[in-house]
Amino acid sequence: PPGRKVLIVYAHQEPKSLNGSLKKVAVEELSKQGCIVTVSDLYAMQFEPRATRNDIVGCLHNSEEFNYGMETWEAYKRGGLSDDLIAEQKKVQEADLLVFQFPLYWFSMPAIMKGWMDRVLVQGFAHEFPNCYDSGLLKNKLALFSFTTGASKEMYAKGSISGDIRYLLWPMQHGIMHFCGVKVLAPHICFAPEYVSEEKRKEMLNAWAQRLKSLWKEEPINCSPEWYFK
Amino acid sequence: PPGRKVLIVYAHQEPKSLNGSLKKVAVEELSKQGCIVTVSDLYAMQFEPRATRNDIVGCLHNSEEFNYGMETWEAYKRGGLSDDLIAEQKKVQEADLLVFQFPLYWFSMPAIMKGWMDRVLVQGFAHEFPNCYDSGLLKNKLALFSFTTGASKEMYAKGSISGDIRYLLWPMQHGIMHFCGVKVLAPHICFAPEYVSEEKRKEMLNAWAQRLKSLWKEEPINCSPEWYFK
Repeated sequence: PPGRKVLIVYAHQEPKSLNGSLKKVAVEELSKQGCIVTVSDLYAMQFEPRATRNDIVGCLHNSEEFNYGMETWEAYKRGGLSDDLIAEQKKVQEADLLVFQFPLYWFSMPAIMKGWMDRVLVQGFAHEFPNCYDSGLLKNKLALFSFTTGASKEMYAKGSISGDIRYLLWPMQHGIMHFCGVKVLAPHICFAPEYVSEEKRKEMLNAWAQRLKSLWKEEPINCSPEWYFK
Repeated sequence: PPGRKVLIVYAHQEPKSLNGSLKKVAVEELSKQGCIVTVSDLYAMQFEPRATRNDIVGCLHNSEEFNYGMETWEAYKRGGLSDDLIAEQKKVQEADLLVFQFPLYWFSMPAIMKGWMDRVLVQGFAHEFPNCYDSGLLKNKLALFSFTTGASKEMYAKGSISGDIRYLLWPMQHGIMHFCGVKVLAPHICFAPEYVSEEKRKEMLNAWAQRLKSLWKEEPINCSPEWYFK
């Protein structure tokens, strides 16, 4: 709906890839709806994935023994995080919906996107005990994981060698997003696009565009062990 | 036992941290046993976590549309991967045991270590369909995930909000190591070291040293959905 703000965090090296096309479709469809869409194109930004002392501007709280979680928490409170983190946090703060678009790497997101999670979702900003899970500091936001796989849908079925695809969503959807209070929409998964026809890939893009048309009417999943492990 | 080779892939910024001490204990104990121990200290190496075109030396197989998995596979076959990847692959190839030592970040490993997985375990080197899972190319090796958590053991119990800790081990142990044919030893977990006494932390270091004494007699876990999800 007009005015809703969407942040797409996108991790693919190649604009011509299916991930690139899925991102483009989302920008177009959501813009057409009147949403304000921002994209963090992580590879193009050469986003830094490593959690280091460079993320803190100025003096450390404890320079004797570096503790990343503690230092970024303290830095957040005094406005002393590095500029790239402040910029990403501002995008997150303003967004109603976070879309993560990526190719599945090793049952998870690519390291560059994991680094975005590690560095941006700082304590004090995204959570602050006991404000986690349903009372996480990013509550009232939605998240959606949209990704492509190498393996087929059959290989990610319950009972097959790679297990139910939901098993691998637990750390990302529950461990990260739910922990921060974000409600999770059903994932959008394009299975094995490298092994299907050009026609089938076009259908995948159309299906994504179609889903986006009614996205704002969707109910979040019940993000609890039952959803993942039955 | 004398001559066994161990690679410790270590991801902590601070040598004085518990992770730093756990790494040190492992180097000392395993060396005492006569093992040949190598450490990849990822932050000290400023290890690159991003999967990019820079990982391929020379021309691309398909310069029209960059496909990281395809390009690194082709580059591996012609000896055209970047030097840092070749160096890590050599360490993996020689190792009988891989130990991953890290603080849990967001139900997973820190991005710098995920980048090591994404970039080092290239198709052709670590797996090559249908050589995956039990016939993965790194079979006859062992892996052990040794990590610290922020939350307590109680918070990672079945039925509690963060779920059984085994749930989050699935992508790392099964999705990565088992996929490459590596057999997985039981994880070694130090819960919430930041919230316990100095004495308790010393006990944690002793327990790790003790476990390492009989490590080579351990049987790998049965790395299947049952182990993780009961």
